[in-house]
Amino acid sequence: MSAISFELIKKDPGCAARLGSLTTTHGRIKTPIFMPVGTQATVKAMTPEELVEVGSQIILANTYHLYLRPGHELVARLGGLHRFMHWDRPMLTDSGGFQVFSLGELRKISEEGVKFRSHIDGSKHFISPEVSIAIQEALGADIAMCFDECPPYPAERSYVQKSLELTTRWARRCKEAHSRPDQALFGIVQGGMHPDLRRESARQITDIGFDGYALGGLSVGEEKEVMHAMMQECSDILPENSPRYIMGIGAPEDLVEAVYNGFDMFDCVMPTRNARNGALFTSFGRINIKAAIYAEDQGPIDSACDCYVCRNYSRAYLRHLYRSQEILASRLNSWHNLHFFLNLMKQMREAIGRGEFVKFRQEFYAARTSC
Amino acid sequence: MSAISFELIKKDPGCAARLGSLTTTHGRIKTPIFMPVGTQATVKAMTPEELVEVGSQIILANTYHLYLRPGHELVARLGGLHRFMHWDRPMLTDSGGFQVFSLGELRKISEEGVKFRSHIDGSKHFISPEVSIAIQEALGADIAMCFDECPPYPAERSYVQKSLELTTRWARRCKEAHSRPDQALFGIVQGGMHPDLRRESARQITDIGFDGYALGGLSVGEEKEVMHAMMQECSDILPENSPRYIMGIGAPEDLVEAVYNGFDMFDCVMPTRNARNGALFTSFGRINIKAAIYAEDQGPIDSACDCYVCRNYSRAYLRHLYRSQEILASRLNSWHNLHFFLNLMKQMREAIGRGEFVKFRQEFYAARTSC
Repeated sequence: MSAISFELIKKDPGCAARLGSLTTTHGRIKTPIFMPVGTQATVKAMTPEELVEVGSQIILANTYHLYLRPGHELVARLGGLHRFMHWDRPMLTDSGGFQVFSLGELRKISEEGVKFRSHIDGSKHFISPEVSIAIQEALGADIAMCFDECPPYPAERSYVQKSLELTTRWARRCKEAHSRPDQALFGIVQGGMHPDLRRESARQITDIGFDGYALGGLSVGEEKEVMHAMMQECSDILPENSPRYIMGIGAPEDLVEAVYNGFDMFDCVMPTRNARNGALFTSFGRINIKAAIYAEDQGPIDSACDCYVCRNYSRAYLRHLYRSQEILASRLNSWHNLHFFLNLMKQMREAIGRGEFVKFRQEFYAARTSC
Repeated sequence: MSAISFELIKKDPGCAARLGSLTTTHGRIKTPIFMPVGTQATVKAMTPEELVEVGSQIILANTYHLYLRPGHELVARLGGLHRFMHWDRPMLTDSGGFQVFSLGELRKISEEGVKFRSHIDGSKHFISPEVSIAIQEALGADIAMCFDECPPYPAERSYVQKSLELTTRWARRCKEAHSRPDQALFGIVQGGMHPDLRRESARQITDIGFDGYALGGLSVGEEKEVMHAMMQECSDILPENSPRYIMGIGAPEDLVEAVYNGFDMFDCVMPTRNARNGALFTSFGRINIKAAIYAEDQGPIDSACDCYVCRNYSRAYLRHLYRSQEILASRLNSWHNLHFFLNLMKQMREAIGRGEFVKFRQEFYAARTSC
């Protein structure tokens, strides 16, 4: 029996977009959904209650970071990650693979796993598929991810081919190692920007059989057009009756394209990271609040937005907070951006519910080009 | 007619502690009260709603900082400080004097006022009593403070004497310059650590006549015993039917001593600044959350505390957030510390209401020495 169940509720008549319901140990999620990233057991600058207020149904935490600090065994002794961080709703952990590969010179890959040095103190560590699963079971999220190799971009086709085969062997070991009955395990499809390799990887990973499937290795430096083309190429390579997750995306337009192509789950640090740099998302595109034109602007960030920030604070005040390096700047900017992303997902779900996703997508682009 | 009215509700039978009600343009305050400090038009890491939740009745903003950035005229054009920062309850601004004098080599005092250089960009500025009042009227707090000279500690008696006389001449000019009918103006008594000079200053300032009176120049580096002795010496030098404010204090024990000696209003950055450094206030004394002993501590900061933080988060999690330099660390620590300070004031008001402040004070010290 699986720790999760996925119900496909509706398919849009004009495209591959789909409405679903994913039931996990900690509750039900309406898909498509965006997962805010809580790297170090906190979505930066937000409380759990605020995450719920902006519409978060599920959040993501990073295995690599929590393994290093405070340590997964400590988290387990304290009752697991949900209890530790005061979040009693669905949660997903990544495998640590992407972070480890991002360390560059600090890591070394073998068949067995990856040796690396901590970005915090330089200490030596080793993560294998089995270790990644053990860490994720200790953290206790509702959904764990297979430990995969994410090839760099660009990469030789031969490297990408070898890499996806290693990822498949590691996926088998992850499934073998995984034992926690209240936790689902998702497989990850690699294959770089080669459609045929993506198909090959999808065939191998779905043959093993997982509770859900993800595309890894997108948003790794490729052009937007390449990324969106890959979404289209991969639109039908994952099983229809399982949740389909694209890891690490994305910008609002990436989310719209991904949903258009039939994907259900997404995560990205963009809303919170950009917020801390003063970059704010609106229905008419992005603005940067530090710009001098906002110095005396009494209007909200986005007059079409009904979030707490837009209801109560002016651009002039937000600019003042940002220039003054106040913590409240990071808070309010993160709040607005997360609300924007989660509200965008809600609008997309509603559009699919009405069978009008194609129209929604057209209007989304029209609004943005009008500014 | 005054912009505020103060009603003395009850005097404790065993000491000078008193319960009062201060009615301002933006609402009524129960005294004694602690005012969280919102230096740059934000109480660091807190939203206005959270300030209300922890029990804030009135907050303080800093004239010096807001004059430099974003500028008082900009704030006035945007509808005043209340609207700018989304705080519709009582507010007090200091005069800028203390901050300007703290600049040391960057400022020069004359009869006319103070020339100084900005700590932000080194630009040249001049604040006189008239300028301070103009800035404070533009900001529009419920209570403005006279521009005073705060002598350093230690200082020659002759310097302190001259300084308090300059403060009196400036107080006259402040009263003359002040015109906003919806804003109260408080006078400031100086005199260093010399009881007779404090009495002399109080006589001169009360002769001019203000809506309330403050002691300035305490908590400037003197020993605790000296500070507490000065509170006792000054217990009866301010009019009984006006609010009595000690500026810039203090630690919990300072607040207890000040209330014991009949003072009504206080402000200090201590709860928020200490919070950002991991220092937390509890009923049994201070702790620092970064200590290794809290690594696996599942208990709350203070089991006697019912604040949002103590209800939902463990010391282990707060330690993790602090070590990980997460914004949520500053948020939750500030939340708890402000709740502690404002709850302490509430407990003191209740003790005076019962006529048992002397007993309360004994129990306060007994609880702290027990750890």
